[in-house]
Amino acid sequence: MNSAEELGERGVIETILRYLELPSNMPISFGDDVSALDVGHGKLAVIKTDMLVGRTDVPSGMSFWQGARKAVVMNISDLAAKGVQPIAILASLGIPRGLTKKDIEEIGKGLNAGAREYNAYVLGGDTNEASDLIISCTAFGTCRKQFIMKRSGAKPNDIVAVTNFFGKTSSGLKILLEKLSAPKKLEKLLVDSVLMPQARLKEGLALVQTGAVTASIDSSDGLAWSLHALSRASNVGFHIDNLPIARETEEFAKIHNLDSMELCLYGGEEYELVLTINPKFWEKAQDAVLHVGGLLIRIGTATKEKTLIFKINSKTLEIEPRGWEHFKTD
Amino acid sequence: MNSAEELGERGVIETILRYLELPSNMPISFGDDVSALDVGHGKLAVIKTDMLVGRTDVPSGMSFWQGARKAVVMNISDLAAKGVQPIAILASLGIPRGLTKKDIEEIGKGLNAGAREYNAYVLGGDTNEASDLIISCTAFGTCRKQFIMKRSGAKPNDIVAVTNFFGKTSSGLKILLEKLSAPKKLEKLLVDSVLMPQARLKEGLALVQTGAVTASIDSSDGLAWSLHALSRASNVGFHIDNLPIARETEEFAKIHNLDSMELCLYGGEEYELVLTINPKFWEKAQDAVLHVGGLLIRIGTATKEKTLIFKINSKTLEIEPRGWEHFKTD
Repeated sequence: MNSAEELGERGVIETILRYLELPSNMPISFGDDVSALDVGHGKLAVIKTDMLVGRTDVPSGMSFWQGARKAVVMNISDLAAKGVQPIAILASLGIPRGLTKKDIEEIGKGLNAGAREYNAYVLGGDTNEASDLIISCTAFGTCRKQFIMKRSGAKPNDIVAVTNFFGKTSSGLKILLEKLSAPKKLEKLLVDSVLMPQARLKEGLALVQTGAVTASIDSSDGLAWSLHALSRASNVGFHIDNLPIARETEEFAKIHNLDSMELCLYGGEEYELVLTINPKFWEKAQDAVLHVGGLLIRIGTATKEKTLIFKINSKTLEIEPRGWEHFKTD
Repeated sequence: MNSAEELGERGVIETILRYLELPSNMPISFGDDVSALDVGHGKLAVIKTDMLVGRTDVPSGMSFWQGARKAVVMNISDLAAKGVQPIAILASLGIPRGLTKKDIEEIGKGLNAGAREYNAYVLGGDTNEASDLIISCTAFGTCRKQFIMKRSGAKPNDIVAVTNFFGKTSSGLKILLEKLSAPKKLEKLLVDSVLMPQARLKEGLALVQTGAVTASIDSSDGLAWSLHALSRASNVGFHIDNLPIARETEEFAKIHNLDSMELCLYGGEEYELVLTINPKFWEKAQDAVLHVGGLLIRIGTATKEKTLIFKINSKTLEIEPRGWEHFKTD
């Protein structure tokens, strides 16, 4: 008999999915970043739930305020990847007995801050006693049917793009969890990328309006994993020729003799958007993102062949279907 | 410094609420059974989240299938109390390492069963590792603006009514947790009321259409607590002259020399509706519920005076603001 531990997170999900009946006409496939429902008049209701567990999602060094804010932001990031403005957040809490009143105040402030940063409100929730700190948030928004970016529309020759350079959070986690060090300014920047994640909402909202995006996902499970998920959902491969390694990741990797490609591709907790874009509308898409103060970086091309490869220093390597694994703080 | 333990569940909620900003025009007040959002065209989106924690919400004797089903049903019950059909359920899971594949299959089946019983679907979710079993569900539905039953509309002279007799779950919990016994048939009925809760959805949907209901809440925190919550939200008192003690509760109380009033008023996990009804439309309301195979029992009257009292055997007693306290299985 397999245990949950042997099955792993994805094995548990697959086991549960086998028993779920699904309605016949879903506006967005099961397993996309969000769930969506047709509410009539050409509109979709879009909902997402994602749970933060203190033991695995809150590294040492992250405050209760930051943890609560992150629990909201990670849900907003999924709506951002679909191009949907979040309106309401619900927060279901599991509170360990030992928390102080001040800790709980920080959680309240962090939830509110996470929502208000993105023009949403925390409108409800539920509190329970639990062994771990649990902050299970639900984000809700609505959109016009044609203005949602799914995982499943990428076509061969589409441009693959991302909203930032990668590897800062995986470097930051090495500082927080493995106590690696870095010069002060660099260290702060890398650690902050973990403690204060940003959802790419203005980018997502700008991009959905262009009609240029053929597929989209958020990169919370790491760049490689996200590319694999887009590839599976869209039935294309990707040829990455411009690996978006952050300059700070290169610096950090050099200090500790780490592999910056590894940090870039196989990290996680990095809430960027990974998109495919119709090449005819590339400039329109780039202009839209620049206009809201964001970045849109071309990293490669979608291919008919279903392989995921990247080129670096004239070598061609496979992008492995490895993703973010929950880290342990103990 | 107060700890979470000293604050208690309601103290934790109040502490968090102090830091939440709220939008100015909410279709339903913060703290009602659900949150609602105006999605245009005269419609509301209605959402609710409620977390099941294995340690406190799953008594010994409840299977994983039953626990997962309950996690869904307790959310559906809140929509039922508002008269709103649930469409989608999301389930965020915290899975302890020791669970077997069979346990996880049972959770998948239970989630699906809970949703399908009420014509909803599990459309998404999230899985994590956690110390406790955590099943945090979100229920979503839509309704016309005028067809939602709030907590806040009760008027003096309205009839107070409930959808069933009370005290079966508190008796059943005494069997499951304190190992009290009862004759086989009675024991099964009382235990089943805990293991297989039913949401009063068809009753809620029938009642909202009558326009007869002035206020409504589900009784998951116990009858007394629910009456107090309605009283606070509507600014009325209640005079209860027909305490709805279940026959089975009387039987069980007699065997163990327990107070059946206590079991009726101060239990919990009993997912009935507690309603106030415009007396002009009482028959219409009762007919509507009977028509769908339900019960509507008049238990008293709303009063201008803000006191909550009940009469039994010519004695007048106060209904105390005590409610459901999480039980411990250890």
